[in-house]
Amino acid sequence: MAHKNIFFAHSGGVTATINATLCGVIREYKQHRDHFDQLFVGCGGIMGALEENMVNVSNWSPQAIETLSMTPGSAFGSCRFKLKDPEQQASEFARILDVFKAHRIGYFIYNGGNDSQDTTLKIAEYCAAHGHPLVCIGIPKTIDNDLEITDHCPGFGSAAKYIATSMFEASIDLAAMSKTSTKVFVLEVMGRHAGWLAASTALAPKPFNADIILLPERPFNESSTLEEIKHVVTSKGYCSVCVAEGLKDQNNQIWSSQIDTIDAFGHVQLGGAGPKMASLIKEKLNLKTHYAVADYLQRSARHIASKVDVDESIALGQAAIKHCKARKHGVMLTIQRLSNHPYKTRISQTPLNNVANKEKLVPDHYIADNNLNVNKACIEYLAPLIAGEDYPKYYSGLPCYQAFPMNLVKKQLDAVTNL
Amino acid sequence: MAHKNIFFAHSGGVTATINATLCGVIREYKQHRDHFDQLFVGCGGIMGALEENMVNVSNWSPQAIETLSMTPGSAFGSCRFKLKDPEQQASEFARILDVFKAHRIGYFIYNGGNDSQDTTLKIAEYCAAHGHPLVCIGIPKTIDNDLEITDHCPGFGSAAKYIATSMFEASIDLAAMSKTSTKVFVLEVMGRHAGWLAASTALAPKPFNADIILLPERPFNESSTLEEIKHVVTSKGYCSVCVAEGLKDQNNQIWSSQIDTIDAFGHVQLGGAGPKMASLIKEKLNLKTHYAVADYLQRSARHIASKVDVDESIALGQAAIKHCKARKHGVMLTIQRLSNHPYKTRISQTPLNNVANKEKLVPDHYIADNNLNVNKACIEYLAPLIAGEDYPKYYSGLPCYQAFPMNLVKKQLDAVTNL
Repeated sequence: MAHKNIFFAHSGGVTATINATLCGVIREYKQHRDHFDQLFVGCGGIMGALEENMVNVSNWSPQAIETLSMTPGSAFGSCRFKLKDPEQQASEFARILDVFKAHRIGYFIYNGGNDSQDTTLKIAEYCAAHGHPLVCIGIPKTIDNDLEITDHCPGFGSAAKYIATSMFEASIDLAAMSKTSTKVFVLEVMGRHAGWLAASTALAPKPFNADIILLPERPFNESSTLEEIKHVVTSKGYCSVCVAEGLKDQNNQIWSSQIDTIDAFGHVQLGGAGPKMASLIKEKLNLKTHYAVADYLQRSARHIASKVDVDESIALGQAAIKHCKARKHGVMLTIQRLSNHPYKTRISQTPLNNVANKEKLVPDHYIADNNLNVNKACIEYLAPLIAGEDYPKYYSGLPCYQAFPMNLVKKQLDAVTNL
Repeated sequence: MAHKNIFFAHSGGVTATINATLCGVIREYKQHRDHFDQLFVGCGGIMGALEENMVNVSNWSPQAIETLSMTPGSAFGSCRFKLKDPEQQASEFARILDVFKAHRIGYFIYNGGNDSQDTTLKIAEYCAAHGHPLVCIGIPKTIDNDLEITDHCPGFGSAAKYIATSMFEASIDLAAMSKTSTKVFVLEVMGRHAGWLAASTALAPKPFNADIILLPERPFNESSTLEEIKHVVTSKGYCSVCVAEGLKDQNNQIWSSQIDTIDAFGHVQLGGAGPKMASLIKEKLNLKTHYAVADYLQRSARHIASKVDVDESIALGQAAIKHCKARKHGVMLTIQRLSNHPYKTRISQTPLNNVANKEKLVPDHYIADNNLNVNKACIEYLAPLIAGEDYPKYYSGLPCYQAFPMNLVKKQLDAVTNL
């Protein structure tokens, strides 16, 4: 029986280390060429399967693989495209099956968040039911760190390191200016439901850590928050605040979407949590306030990646190939933490339906009693994940990130336009 | 005659390398102890003189000085306090004179922007007129890079490197997601009148540079900007936009202050240029748009400082002491560029009134014909300033920045409360 090909794809929001995982996949694949035929990567994630756009990376040079490991984002693109129900999306599932058959795909590795693990599961079930057995492996990936079972998610540690460093640096700036100028600094970070990224601003050493962290896990209490800001400014001279974009109000609605500002065109405009919080503080406390919005910067900051995160990201890619070889089907790889001092982990796995569509929030026992910060236990959990530096190479003052050639595998099927 | 003391102070917005300049001052001072008595640093800039709050750094250890050189912000604080007119601010000027006399200050080194150079000049003139001759030296410092005469300003190169890297990384992220998600990314950077920081987003290599740069030097043309964004998204798939916070409208008013959004409290709220631009693009072009606001992050990002910038910042501090020793009074130090390939500069000086209260904007011959970008000549000018990396040391995943002890020099005067 001829060996089968592998199809690998990224999914969902990209990270600083998602390419590093692919790098691990390619490196390990090269060690096991006697078990597999070719290694294809989907262009634009699962869209690559739907559109039959795949790149063969089987013979990439070690140099190209190394550059790939240093480049943030997804070299082959990712997507926000949900494949949930084979009955409602029959043509999409049928198309993927056709493409997998035409290209003799025997292994499907999907690197993504909780939605993506659901996709992996559905495709695995569908292909099996239609006579095309497939080894399906999920790899965790999300800066939000909200996947169940796994101790943490690749991509998170680097984003957390960026955010902790940014809060550290901005608070030092604030401290220097606070006597005659700005008193409050607000940093808006990602995290729609889970506050792990916001929590990471607690990692900066005192007095330059976030004084107040507004997590999506706790409904926003305006009066207690403003009271605490006032108290911190009075006692310390300045106050640093981190707000998660997904902060909820008392009715469990996204707080920042409730501002109902009317823009220049007379339309309701959704304010960001950062600008809105800064505006509230200025208005209610009459304190000069600055705000920053990290947005894509926090998830693409490969220049300050965590070495622990990069190493784990690569290791998960390598493990995915080993799992393919061992035909450990229908699982997502996980990171198990064995100890904190020294930090030790091992790679394990869990059935996909243990993680698909589930969310791991910051638990109650990590949140400070006043609901306005995280506690020591949370810092203990977070600290090892940002450890170590893994600088990219630089050329002319900028990191040597690269765009990679997209030489597509020859198409075997007609294009489908009705998807 | 007993040697005189030196008074050094920071002024205005802080930078990633302003402490490095102080580090150069201390190091060089230690080489010339036979010419000076003590080296004092003002707490909170010139406020340190007004309040007689000064720290004696004469005997700082080499290790403390090295840590100082790696720490962003101002270890002794800075201020936004304008001293302009001895006639209107007679008590402030008299107080500074008293403090300088009481502490036998014979040298005043002021590290700041164009406003600060004006302060240096006024203090120099006032002290001379009141029988307390003073050697006054200004050191340029501003991330805005808007000082006249000097080729560029310490602090700018590091901010530019941060901004160029951030645009590079965010554009890679955008490119990966653009097929099924975000099409436009907007980065708001500082620069109220001068577009040097915005221009630095042109340094990222194609296709990940800013496609459109909205400089404060050109009034915002909504229709041509939106037309260009549409064109770029159509041809390239995504579009990266940099907007300076100080972008002007056709009436030379700050564009972002014209939004007149009404906030939750019924008050007019000044929108930032980034959020406003993102809102405009979503509204008018119906394109999914993300925005980031760099704010303090851009001027405190010591973790990605430019080596050229750090080295020049230190060298200017050293030169200030040499100028004190040579009694080259009433000048601001400048950087003269001798060549680009290889990049060579030398330190020179100019009379303070050549720079006080003047602004150097991005000149016409650096701006692209369509007014929506900078040109190759501008990139040639900017490129050497971000060259080289100068990483801080790290501890537990975070830079080893430090808060320094503020052991104040014994006060000689009564406190003054009516300033």
